[in-house]
Amino acid sequence: MSRNLTVSPARIAADIDALAAITEQNRPWTRRAFSPLFLEGRAYLEKAFRAAGLETRIDAAGNLTGIRKGKTPGSGTIMLGSHSDTVPDGGRFDGVAGVVVALEVVRGLTEAGVELDHDLEVADFLAEEVSIFGVSCIGSRGMAGVRPAEWLSREAGGMTLADGITQVGGNPDAEQKARDDIRAFLELHIEQGPVLESEKRDIGVVTAIAGITRVEIIVEGRADHAGTTPMDHRADALAASAHVVLAVETFAGELSATPGHFAATTGEFEMWPNAANVVPSKVRMLLDIRSEHRDDLGAFLASLESCLEGIAGDNGVAIAAPRLVSDNPAMPMDPLVMDVLDDACETTGATHRRMASGAGHDAAFMARIAKAGMVFIPCRDGRSHTPEEFAENADIALAAEVLLEAVKRLDKQLMEQ
Amino acid sequence: MSRNLTVSPARIAADIDALAAITEQNRPWTRRAFSPLFLEGRAYLEKAFRAAGLETRIDAAGNLTGIRKGKTPGSGTIMLGSHSDTVPDGGRFDGVAGVVVALEVVRGLTEAGVELDHDLEVADFLAEEVSIFGVSCIGSRGMAGVRPAEWLSREAGGMTLADGITQVGGNPDAEQKARDDIRAFLELHIEQGPVLESEKRDIGVVTAIAGITRVEIIVEGRADHAGTTPMDHRADALAASAHVVLAVETFAGELSATPGHFAATTGEFEMWPNAANVVPSKVRMLLDIRSEHRDDLGAFLASLESCLEGIAGDNGVAIAAPRLVSDNPAMPMDPLVMDVLDDACETTGATHRRMASGAGHDAAFMARIAKAGMVFIPCRDGRSHTPEEFAENADIALAAEVLLEAVKRLDKQLMEQ
Repeated sequence: MSRNLTVSPARIAADIDALAAITEQNRPWTRRAFSPLFLEGRAYLEKAFRAAGLETRIDAAGNLTGIRKGKTPGSGTIMLGSHSDTVPDGGRFDGVAGVVVALEVVRGLTEAGVELDHDLEVADFLAEEVSIFGVSCIGSRGMAGVRPAEWLSREAGGMTLADGITQVGGNPDAEQKARDDIRAFLELHIEQGPVLESEKRDIGVVTAIAGITRVEIIVEGRADHAGTTPMDHRADALAASAHVVLAVETFAGELSATPGHFAATTGEFEMWPNAANVVPSKVRMLLDIRSEHRDDLGAFLASLESCLEGIAGDNGVAIAAPRLVSDNPAMPMDPLVMDVLDDACETTGATHRRMASGAGHDAAFMARIAKAGMVFIPCRDGRSHTPEEFAENADIALAAEVLLEAVKRLDKQLMEQ
Repeated sequence: MSRNLTVSPARIAADIDALAAITEQNRPWTRRAFSPLFLEGRAYLEKAFRAAGLETRIDAAGNLTGIRKGKTPGSGTIMLGSHSDTVPDGGRFDGVAGVVVALEVVRGLTEAGVELDHDLEVADFLAEEVSIFGVSCIGSRGMAGVRPAEWLSREAGGMTLADGITQVGGNPDAEQKARDDIRAFLELHIEQGPVLESEKRDIGVVTAIAGITRVEIIVEGRADHAGTTPMDHRADALAASAHVVLAVETFAGELSATPGHFAATTGEFEMWPNAANVVPSKVRMLLDIRSEHRDDLGAFLASLESCLEGIAGDNGVAIAAPRLVSDNPAMPMDPLVMDVLDDACETTGATHRRMASGAGHDAAFMARIAKAGMVFIPCRDGRSHTPEEFAENADIALAAEVLLEAVKRLDKQLMEQ
């Protein structure tokens, strides 16, 4: 397939390759936030932003941004961006593709002689991935004014998070204020799932960032001698927990077949005493639940709780009510932005569908202060956060063209509001 | 219930209490083999053996024994005994009761003026429990001539097992020879299970020491993002393993309802990567299978293997054929000794039943070189290997009387053979 694109696939590929080369050499593709390699990547990006005519700065929250002034002062900002930090062992495209594409949209618009009314700003958010400080989306939370104050004193690697923000050029001492000039925010990201690839679609227009709820379940049985205790005299915490795991899978499967993203995973599973000749006495499970619709979460938890009593009774064990460890509701994307992205796909000739994001993204925080939207692109086998993570450059370039088209449309439509 | 006993319940209680006092003070009842406390316990026993008129020695394998000569030289030995070492945190009765009762049988016979044709020997076997060297039944294996030669070079606590055997007074350099003079061996032990207590019976006459087979099952799925991977695109190793755990429980339950002891336990269960937001990619299970009848083990493994393929297919995971980690077949007790023990129970007025032992015991090794038998006594809630392990002194004393009666009968019957 050959298309006439305003953006340059070759430039996108060159930027992604250049950033991929800035990695721990024995552990591709690793460029973790707050590391020297991260600053090296930032230096590359800053130089590239400037070469594209952008005025760069590091904001107080530690985000690198580059601004292209619009022709109508006071009309506000359209922002594009994502993050250049990676998880350990993975992230050749996760985050980076979104930053590089944001930059290419600027270059494409400038080369095509397109002037916008709004300022156009490209952002590389600080530490979207869970960093050494154990928390995520540090930069976008800061830009939205919702980075918890107590996080600054978190310690890791011989420094505090405040030290880390200072090292990348931010100012942790500045009063944290939400940006109020951003009219719209757009982010491109790999899907990190198999849907677009399996459906052979170019673009996923994201409807919401799913909520993330973590629930702990503890099953307590009785440690008995595995050789001498008859099968019908046992209170086996593992057997009871196997029923819980299958209930989680069943209820999640049912809800995932209804409209709106839903997934639930028993991601952590620990057993005691974990000795060959002892009947298991205790199991701790941590459930990860992703829901686009809050009702689905409620239905899931209700189904689960209602079956736990039966499982406990049948197996002679005790199961306490599930404990809510954390609960972050879904963040819907903006309807106007979603429509603009659909239209941009049509204009560009990109096949597309709407879909929720099961993973968290900077866009979830930007949605608090701007009309936000995201586009997903296919990634090979749905894999991410591994060295095998891969996206086709043609897919990235096509999505860049969609974003360029969307920016032109948003620039017009937002002026009319 | 008051009975006329030849043995002395008070002496039994005094010995058990005295040995219980020789424990790690903050961690009752701990007197592990090869520790200074173990040697202190041995010193108490050796003195008590001598006070009962026994001629004591430590054999080459590190067992403490005491001999009461019989009146017919060359007729061989009847041995009684168990072990005085404990697991960490438990063992007020496990092992100790059998040694103390063996000693009390000697005292009772002597006080009653009973002379035997056979030599009567009391044994405290070395290190029946899994010791710091990671293996069990070191002393009884040595007496039976089947202690693996390579065990002597095992290292723990800054010494080799050979050093440990030397420290307790044994001789690891001596050629290992099976004793060939022992005509019969009797051991008393707490049941370590709930059957006698729940049936309100005094004595279990053991039919066999169940075989112990360990089998490893590894389930391999695929690590996917827990948020973004749809429920129907997963290869969840935990969900598949839950089916395996329940299959183990079902098949074991069916076989436990047929004649002969059978139990199977998924005692070890480890999962990877065990991260909240990642679909589980791998699970390792270790099964502990106890079977009195070899056919039951075969049927169990056949049922399990035949269902693994279906579980793998249904869940999109790979499950290799179960790997046999270890396999020790059941050791039947001697029919003559079982009959003598039944008769002794009747004479003594002890209610009794036959039952297999799900746990391993020194008697399993003594059965290789002598007509062996065991009696079980009830223990509270079937608990063992915990500080709460408890047996009533009246139950222990009644069993001592049964053993005394059995020794008298065996002494006669073995002379007639």
